[in-house]
Amino acid sequence: MPRQVDHEGRRRLIAEAVCRLADERGLEGVTLRDVAARADVSMGAVQRCFRTKEEMLVFALGHIGERIGERVRARLVGSPAQSAATALGHAATEVALLRDEHRAEARVWLAFVAQAAVSEVLAKTLRENYAALHDAFTRLISEASEAAADAEGGLALDPRLEARTLLALADGLTAHVLIGHLTPQAAGEVLHAHLARLWERSARPHR
Amino acid sequence: MPRQVDHEGRRRLIAEAVCRLADERGLEGVTLRDVAARADVSMGAVQRCFRTKEEMLVFALGHIGERIGERVRARLVGSPAQSAATALGHAATEVALLRDEHRAEARVWLAFVAQAAVSEVLAKTLRENYAALHDAFTRLISEASEAAADAEGGLALDPRLEARTLLALADGLTAHVLIGHLTPQAAGEVLHAHLARLWERSARPHR
Repeated sequence: MPRQVDHEGRRRLIAEAVCRLADERGLEGVTLRDVAARADVSMGAVQRCFRTKEEMLVFALGHIGERIGERVRARLVGSPAQSAATALGHAATEVALLRDEHRAEARVWLAFVAQAAVSEVLAKTLRENYAALHDAFTRLISEASEAAADAEGGLALDPRLEARTLLALADGLTAHVLIGHLTPQAAGEVLHAHLARLWERSARPHR
Repeated sequence: MPRQVDHEGRRRLIAEAVCRLADERGLEGVTLRDVAARADVSMGAVQRCFRTKEEMLVFALGHIGERIGERVRARLVGSPAQSAATALGHAATEVALLRDEHRAEARVWLAFVAQAAVSEVLAKTLRENYAALHDAFTRLISEASEAAADAEGGLALDPRLEARTLLALADGLTAHVLIGHLTPQAAGEVLHAHLARLWERSARPHR
């Protein structure tokens, strides 16, 4: 089905153009006309791929979400011998988008989060992404704290609550690096100190 | 100086109109024309107050920042007998904008944070706000943990690191409530559990 493949390929090409424009100017700067020019396709081609600007934005958001999700999964399976604690550290670092090469992605993600506050379809796409991340974090925290509990006898934390905390912390750090309140190094220290305390608690008998 | 007062009053009136429009449509929907209509002043009046849209946005951001800052300060001095720990809990809850009546403010704040990623003047205003909040949080954490250390002998935490963590967590929670990933109640639980663990650690001898 070569036409199908071309269509999907073109949608991804357009999504990349949306992200580059959003990175440069914010979502405000994303017009169908500019997207067409940036992706080097006609306005008509953009309109055949997406009926509305919102549909185009939802697809672009899903596209970034997949990219981040793939990196997180790659970190989780990359070294099967790693402990759940190590895997969680890697996954949280990916989600926080602290590395220089992910700064553009972070800017675009944050623009989508802000826009989602006034667009229910964007909010729905984001919620699906966050729900998947929340489940992955909860699972890793459960595994790691059970391992610690087996070793020292006692489960001192609530994995779902800890997953919510970690995900919110990661997102807050992304924003604080973007606006220059924190350096990426300082944000990384905050994240790692938080995780270190998490494992310290998980190894302590519940009280 | 009645003209001066009128000028400042008009700027605030316009800032309020900016915030209401940003709440409804995101910052994308904020045009000088619509702001003038919403504030019930002429386009010329808006342009006499602010030379550019960016100048208007910076003023509006400062206006919200002041409002949040005032609420935080009111919580800190509201009950002089309260402990630093209690004051920090109140302050962090204000910063996270979790209450229903602050949802609009949260949407607008998040829109500014996202826009600041591509606007250095907005980023500068935000950094001033975050630096002030960081200092206030650091001071309260120092006070509270010193009180605990006096009582039990030992200082187990780094107030600056904890302030960074708390501020990022509060901001992440704001975003997660806005997109509907968390209910305000769930976000409040995350925040309070985090603070409870903070005080638990501060009362434990350093190791």
